[in-house]
This record gives sequence, structure tokens and C-alpha cells, in this order.
Amino acid sequence: MNALTQLKEFQSIFSPFLVSFFKMRRKKIEDFWPLAKDMFEKLAEFTLRGGKRTRPALLYYSYQGFSEENPEKLLPICVACELMQSFLLIHDDIMDQSDIRRGGKTIHQQFPQAPNEYGASMAILIGNLAGYLGIQAMMASEFDSSIKSRLMDFYAQICIDAGYGQALDISLHSLNALTEENIYTIYRYKTARYTTEFPLLSMATLTNCNDETTASIKKLGIDLGILFQLQDDILGSFGDEQKMGKQSSIDLLQGKKTLLIYKAFEKANKEQKENLIHIYGNLQATPSEITLAKKIMVETGALDYANEIIKKRSDSALNIIEQLTIKPVGKNFLQDLVYYCGNREH
Amino acid sequence: MNALTQLKEFQSIFSPFLVSFFKMRRKKIEDFWPLAKDMFEKLAEFTLRGGKRTRPALLYYSYQGFSEENPEKLLPICVACELMQSFLLIHDDIMDQSDIRRGGKTIHQQFPQAPNEYGASMAILIGNLAGYLGIQAMMASEFDSSIKSRLMDFYAQICIDAGYGQALDISLHSLNALTEENIYTIYRYKTARYTTEFPLLSMATLTNCNDETTASIKKLGIDLGILFQLQDDILGSFGDEQKMGKQSSIDLLQGKKTLLIYKAFEKANKEQKENLIHIYGNLQATPSEITLAKKIMVETGALDYANEIIKKRSDSALNIIEQLTIKPVGKNFLQDLVYYCGNREH
Repeated sequence: MNALTQLKEFQSIFSPFLVSFFKMRRKKIEDFWPLAKDMFEKLAEFTLRGGKRTRPALLYYSYQGFSEENPEKLLPICVACELMQSFLLIHDDIMDQSDIRRGGKTIHQQFPQAPNEYGASMAILIGNLAGYLGIQAMMASEFDSSIKSRLMDFYAQICIDAGYGQALDISLHSLNALTEENIYTIYRYKTARYTTEFPLLSMATLTNCNDETTASIKKLGIDLGILFQLQDDILGSFGDEQKMGKQSSIDLLQGKKTLLIYKAFEKANKEQKENLIHIYGNLQATPSEITLAKKIMVETGALDYANEIIKKRSDSALNIIEQLTIKPVGKNFLQDLVYYCGNREH
Repeated sequence: MNALTQLKEFQSIFSPFLVSFFKMRRKKIEDFWPLAKDMFEKLAEFTLRGGKRTRPALLYYSYQGFSEENPEKLLPICVACELMQSFLLIHDDIMDQSDIRRGGKTIHQQFPQAPNEYGASMAILIGNLAGYLGIQAMMASEFDSSIKSRLMDFYAQICIDAGYGQALDISLHSLNALTEENIYTIYRYKTARYTTEFPLLSMATLTNCNDETTASIKKLGIDLGILFQLQDDILGSFGDEQKMGKQSSIDLLQGKKTLLIYKAFEKANKEQKENLIHIYGNLQATPSEITLAKKIMVETGALDYANEIIKKRSDSALNIIEQLTIKPVGKNFLQDLVYYCGNREH
């Protein structure tokens, strides 16, 4: 089975549970005023809208590699993974002034009758709702209190670290301000921490992995997270627009901080540098300027460099997986996921 | 001892602990990048800046009314109370576009070099940091995991409810949109939940109060919270500017939703209504317009009405306290606090 097929299998298990979670929670605000209910529904719609559920799937299948217990017990923690993501995305979208997410309107764009500030304020509150509802999902799981306390502390740590990463991301405004170290810090804290480290290290806590295994799992999480982000970056500049359902050169135009863009700028000659500076963060760039920028990313060797790092991180991840004492169900999923993260097309 | 003296006593116990909490947490980000450290320091400064510490004091002294244990054990939970408040205030200040808090700059105003949106974004992140650091403070306490899990769930619930209350608050834009019910909903959810219900009900959980006592404590929390807010409203329109250190008519000019303002508008004649509408939410109102508005609040009986409700809630709270089986140290503080909340001058 490849990772995409297995992600689909997971979705078929997880989606009904997620729907029933919202249904149960909806009852708790039956007597609340309409605006509160509307906030809740906006969050539910946003969370049910989608994504591939890679994060909770990573928890779900890796857990089965280390435990004999029924993985159904994990589903509330899977909900927490998704609500944490909703929280982070909703707030990020305010800061990035993004209009579209998962094929629909971002939360702050769902208040068109009022000024921008009102939409942003409501999205701050709905994002917070997501984060704290995630905590409650986790607390409602049936694991021991001592384990839940550790998970809870970790959930908070991940949210804190993601915030530090996001702050760095929004604080670098020009190509000249980028450094390779900064980019890796953003990859690690803004993406890897919540995308791969949280599910994998939660699994390690829940299955009581020893220190050595936990250290390996942590390294695997970092490799996987960076792999995931690097492939995202390549798609963000060279992806097939039809397969992705969005403009592929958007990273450059939005002034994103990616290794690909950084490396192109570092290796560019004077003229190429000027061209990159002109197009970077410039949403009005013309199609021919965009084509030129892509050409520069190829000619400077930046694309090759990014692919090389993907190869290195993939090898490192596969090597770690090979050395784990893990049952096939977990091992196969992790291997497939490494392959998928390094080769996905959308 | 009156409540203010006891609050001072508490501050002398709590402040060194709060300082050492930040010191300990600061070590964890020693290797982080400067921006992350700056976020942390801004939060520490904001939280240490102050306030009367009424919320944690309420937990600390009421606990001693029901438990023989050393209340020092509570201090991490007291830190969580204060961090939850920092979280809520920092986000509220963004939405209200407030410049000053606790005699210093609000967080989003501390990024003057960049556009407004950047300051708001950083304040969203620093507010989140506060909320999740509060969770970690709570988790670091030495109570049983099962109790901490219940407290954690409650912490999340309070943050959720405060968000619902704040959303209602920022969504009512005109005097005509106010209803007495809306105002009580805002009082309850935006203020009472985190100000008085959280400390008191956390105490009930920590001391294992029975259901009957917990129900009384809950009612007491609501009375106290509404009392606190009503007195705040009166000060916000009639307070001695010198004692408060801020303009006393600011509530009207900022378009706040208070019972006082609502009642004045409800009881006003046509001409008074027009005057109130003109001044409500109008930061450019002249001193004579402000004087007129205050006169209307008196003449319509709105001020008397608010004082009457304060009297009723005070009586109800004192009655509940009288019927609790509680040691003098807790009882005296609660009684003093009722008196203080109903009569404070700043």
C-alpha cells in the first residue's frame, strides 16, 4: 500500500469520529447565543473541510508499530492534532492576509459585512477556540491522567514553539535578511514541531518508548518535517498547477522564506539578484517575470540543492526507521510516508 | 484586615514566585534566536507589570478556608491564573486597539518600527505564548495528575468561554443593539468566568469540595464577578480620575457595553437619547458633552439602578459565604473581597 492509499484508509476511520466529536461538543453550547454557535460552526466547517490528515495518521499508524492496543483509543488525540493545526492555520492566515485555505475562504475572510479588523478579531477568537478545544479533546481520551498530563504539557510546548517559528517567519522582510540558519529554524519550529514531531513524540509517550528509541523518533520527526516542507517549497515554485489546484509560483510572489529561494539568491549573479529582488513579495509580477525567476532557481543550482537535501533527509529518515524495533504496520507506513513526502505532487 | 491589605500580603508572597517562574522558563530558551527571547521578555514584563493579583489571591485565600495543606503548593496555579489573564488582555487589547494597559504600552504597541499589522501579529503570538505557558505552569504543579487533568480541562473551558464573551462584546456596535441580557452574558462570560469562577472553582476541585458546596461556590463566583464588573463600570464613568490614573468617562467614549450605559439609554427621553448616541463611541466628544452624558446617567436613574444591583449581588454573595463551612482565614477574605469589590475606588 502506498502512503496516499493508507491516508485515505485513515480518513475513512477518522472522519466519522471527527464529525461525532463536533456533534458532541455542539450540544454543550445549545443554550448559547447565536454568535457563539456561529463561531463553533465556522471552526467545525474549517476543520472538517480538510487536508490529508497526515498528522493524525502519523500518530495512528506509528502507534500500531509499537503497541498491541486498539488504536481507536487514539482518536481523541488525533482530533487534538487536527484542532491544533486549525488553530495555527487560522492565526497564520490572519498574519499572512491569506484569502483561501483548503479550497475555501479563510476564517477572517468570512466576515465580509464588517471592516477587516472585525474579521481578524473574530479569527483570533475562533483560532483560540480551536487550540483550547484541542486540549479538551485530548483530556477526554481514556489514557491515564499521568500520561495525559505529559501530553498536555507537550501540546502546549508545540504551540509555543510554533509561535516562535511563525514570529521569525513574519519578521524577515527581504531576501537580504534570509540566512540558511533562519530558514531551517522556521522549518523546524513552524512546521516540523507540529506536523511530525508532535504526532511521533506523542506516540513515543503513549507507548512508553525508552529514551534511546524516543531520541531516534525525535530525529525521525525532524527529518520528516523538513522533508515535508522542502517538497512543499518545490511544489510552491515548480508544482503542476492543475494537480495542486493553486498557482505554483506563489511562494516567490508572496515572499515566502524557503531554502530554494534563499539558495537561488545566494548563488545568483548581480543581474539575477536584481530580478529576484524585483519579483520577491511582488504579487503584481508578470508571467514572464515569473518564468524568469523559475529559470534563475534552476540555473543557480538552487533546485538541485533542494533536491539534494531532500535526498539526504530521506536517507537519514529511512536509516532511522530501519534501525527501529517496530512492527511492519508501523514500519511500512513510515517508509511509505518518507517516499511520499519526498515525491508528492500536491 | 481589609481586602486591599490582604492583596498586598499576597503580592509579597506571589511576586518572588512569579519572578522565579519566568527565570526558570527563560533558561529553556537560552539557545533560541533573539526574536523569540524578545517575545518572552515582553510577556514577562507585561505580566510582572502588574495588576492587583486579585484572581490568584482569591484562589490562595479561599483554599485556606477549605484545606489544611500548605498553600505554597498553589503558587504554580496562581501563575496560571495570571498568565491566562495576560493572554486574554493581550488579545483583547489588539481587538479594542487599546494603547495603554497597566500603566504601560499594550503589547501590539511595542512594535512601532513596523506597520500596525505587524504589531498585531506579534501580539497574537505573544498572547498565545501566555495562554500555553499558563498551561505549563499548571502542569508543573505538584497536585495529582487526575486533579491536574480536571483543572486543565477547566482552564481550556474558561479560555473558550472568555472568547465567546469577547466575541459578543466586539459584535455589538450601537446603543440600539444592547439588551440587558447581552450585557449580563458579556459580564458573565468575558469577566466572571476567568476573574472569579476560575479561581474559586479551581479551589473547589483542589480541595475536593462536595457537589453542594461546589454549586454554592459557583454562584458565589458569578455574584463576585458581576459585582466586580459593575463597580468597574461605575468607576469607568464616575471614578475619581486621580485615584484611577485614567480618564473616568472613557467607557462611554470607547463605546463599552455596560449596564449603566444601557440603562441610561433605555430610560432616556428623546433628547437624552440623541445626546447619548452622539457621545457613545465618540473619542472626540468635548468635556461639556461628557458632563452632559454623566448627568443623563444620574437623571435617568441608571446610576441608582447599577448601585442597586451591586447591593443585591453583595447581599447574595455574603449570604452564600455565611452558609459555607469554611475556616475564618477563607471566610474573612471572601467577605472583605465582597465589600472591596462593591466599594473600591480604583
